[in-house]
Amino acid sequence: MKNAFHMNRARVETLVDGVFAIAMTILVLEVKVPDLADKRSVDELLSALGHHSYVIAAYFFSFAMLAVFWTWHHRMAETVRVFDKALLLCTIVFLSLICFFPFAAALFGRYPTNGAALFVYVMLTGLIVATQTIYFKIAMMRGLLLESVSRAYAMTGHVRNLRGCAIFMIASVPASLRLNEWVAIGVLVLGVIILWHAKRITTQARELGADPS
Amino acid sequence: MKNAFHMNRARVETLVDGVFAIAMTILVLEVKVPDLADKRSVDELLSALGHHSYVIAAYFFSFAMLAVFWTWHHRMAETVRVFDKALLLCTIVFLSLICFFPFAAALFGRYPTNGAALFVYVMLTGLIVATQTIYFKIAMMRGLLLESVSRAYAMTGHVRNLRGCAIFMIASVPASLRLNEWVAIGVLVLGVIILWHAKRITTQARELGADPS
Amino acid sequence: MKNAFHMNRARVETLVDGVFAIAMTILVLEVKVPDLADKRSVDELLSALGHHSYVIAAYFFSFAMLAVFWTWHHRMAETVRVFDKALLLCTIVFLSLICFFPFAAALFGRYPTNGAALFVYVMLTGLIVATQTIYFKIAMMRGLLLESVSRAYAMTGHVRNLRGCAIFMIASVPASLRLNEWVAIGVLVLGVIILWHAKRITTQARELGADPS
Amino acid sequence: MKNAFHMNRARVETLVDGVFAIAMTILVLEVKVPDLADKRSVDELLSALGHHSYVIAAYFFSFAMLAVFWTWHHRMAETVRVFDKALLLCTIVFLSLICFFPFAAALFGRYPTNGAALFVYVMLTGLIVATQTIYFKIAMMRGLLLESVSRAYAMTGHVRNLRGCAIFMIASVPASLRLNEWVAIGVLVLGVIILWHAKRITTQARELGADPS
Repeated sequence: MKNAFHMNRARVETLVDGVFAIAMTILVLEVKVPDLADKRSVDELLSALGHHSYVIAAYFFSFAMLAVFWTWHHRMAETVRVFDKALLLCTIVFLSLICFFPFAAALFGRYPTNGAALFVYVMLTGLIVATQTIYFKIAMMRGLLLESVSRAYAMTGHVRNLRGCAIFMIASVPASLRLNEWVAIGVLVLGVIILWHAKRITTQARELGADPS
Repeated sequence: MKNAFHMNRARVETLVDGVFAIAMTILVLEVKVPDLADKRSVDELLSALGHHSYVIAAYFFSFAMLAVFWTWHHRMAETVRVFDKALLLCTIVFLSLICFFPFAAALFGRYPTNGAALFVYVMLTGLIVATQTIYFKIAMMRGLLLESVSRAYAMTGHVRNLRGCAIFMIASVPASLRLNEWVAIGVLVLGVIILWHAKRITTQARELGADPS
Repeated sequence: MKNAFHMNRARVETLVDGVFAIAMTILVLEVKVPDLADKRSVDELLSALGHHSYVIAAYFFSFAMLAVFWTWHHRMAETVRVFDKALLLCTIVFLSLICFFPFAAALFGRYPTNGAALFVYVMLTGLIVATQTIYFKIAMMRGLLLESVSRAYAMTGHVRNLRGCAIFMIASVPASLRLNEWVAIGVLVLGVIILWHAKRITTQARELGADPS
Repeated sequence: MKNAFHMNRARVETLVDGVFAIAMTILVLEVKVPDLADKRSVDELLSALGHHSYVIAAYFFSFAMLAVFWTWHHRMAETVRVFDKALLLCTIVFLSLICFFPFAAALFGRYPTNGAALFVYVMLTGLIVATQTIYFKIAMMRGLLLESVSRAYAMTGHVRNLRGCAIFMIASVPASLRLNEWVAIGVLVLGVIILWHAKRITTQARELGADPS
């Protein structure tokens, strides 16, 4: 209702925390209680859980991934002063991907040996990583960061995000190969371009006096 | 326990945020992991996901709808100073419709070609839009807005809400036609009446000096 | 880790809001998407939803119940200064009953004509109402209320809670009759005793100058 | 993006509260609505609920366990000033175990007479208790506690945590015996070692003037 659309950070962060908390908890719904022929058999239950061990490991791995995204997001969000439309849209895209994560985790946990399930999981992770990077870039370019955050400091953060993207992409080349070689080549090329772009910004940041370690 | 019932805004907003976060996350539970004959077959999983593509698109669409409602609600709630019984009741009706949204989304995702499923989805959206409009009108009429919000400013907001209602109704005429022509005519007439009502308030607001763009 | 156990109210209230938000949203999981023979048939879907209409009505009714409990709880919690062990325990019992509510709602929605399902629903509601009353009594007796809350004011609140309990119990006599006549008599007697107890406190409160309307 | 990684406590605690609220509510999903042959039969529903009584009791027991963990966690978290990487990691491991709790509760509720299900439940509880103890030790050793918390006071808290660990382990020996005698001996020995370690710290704390009651 204002001409300039501005949204309170606290409001957005409460939603983000809620979505993360639920996405994390929903992961466990995929770990099903096994059906036993003999309800009292210790051996049968242990072997059923043994067959489930992959799903249980996938649960803890996916939980760790969400925790990393959550930590990363909040470290960036801490430097944001206010949300405009573009940054809010970016946050919502980010949240829709986070909410979709339990599905990708369930797919991967059910079909760990299937290249397509791995690809969906890796691609979703890549999109989340990219959204985070775009999030910070939007905040930086549109002057939405706190005034206490220096330009050199922000650029250092952006370079780290870009490097994270590139490393992620290059690391996902083997997974992409299991699906299609052209996808793998595309991912590799994109990763290298981002790495080169990060290097260029690093030079600029250095001129501004930052230490992009 | 007070004669004048007043409720803290922060309290209500925490519940609203929680409900939205869960409704958003529950949407993904409708995207089911497909059953595969050959667990390692990349092609089979990809084609199964292809058949699922409608459900996945519906997930992202419904997520976007909830995000729009959430943003809209909080922009209005920001101007509210305190909750009385009527406004709290309106918020609770609003929340009960939001919690019902995942069901409508699941129904529509399962039967996209069924006119009745589309109608339930559109009708629920319409009710949510109407509840939001009523919410703001209650807050405005009962003097629950912040003192910093001018009367002209509030009326401008109300006109926008009314226009949103009308546009939504007129846009839902084609969907209504798939169910029953009399429903479609009723929706169209209602939309036009609301549009005319909005125009009348615009004139009043203009006299108070607001710019209802 | 302190000798005197004291817990921050904000902490507890966040948990309460979270539990309510999830319990409200989980209610809708019981409204299942119907299976259709002809996926495109509008009539079949409408008649399937018609058969579901009881479940949908039960959803909105249970949602309203939870909303009433939530409002009631927060109106009382607003007068509390700090939580000691007894009040925290009471809150946790309250929350465990609230989390159990979706099960009772699902049971009742599935078997609306079954007296036992109705009895579970009514009994759970009664326990929640009783827990709320005990909650306020504990806060009052142990001096955990805000200092701005006068003794007469607190007693008035307590009398209202007691009356709520009694009215609820007397209203649930018909439901109890469908299960067992002795249960019904017990519930009636308990209701009358509470009503008499409330009357006695009203006299005391009046001597303290309160207006227990 | 800072050289020294520090995370705001409020942020972390919101996530913790969200995860606990959802884990508590998800517990009830395991209490299934029974299928009845005669939908109107009061006796059949009561006897079906009677067969369910174990699951319902397990729900309230697991709810109480989560409530105890939540209370314990917040009492410790109240003394923490800031989160560094190690403490955040410990919190995330703690949360992943809490989210896993509904699975262990469901497993135990389904197979109460199966030693392996009991063992998973007890082992998970033990890991949660251990994580809590480690959490406080990290906060204590890395100087992350509030300055108002004295060293003697912190040590007293740590001793209580250690004793809790030891008592839990010794109490779980019978459950371990149902699985394997060597596991039981290992658990017993570990419990005794922790008890001895707690005693040693008590002596140190006493020298610092604390009263480790």
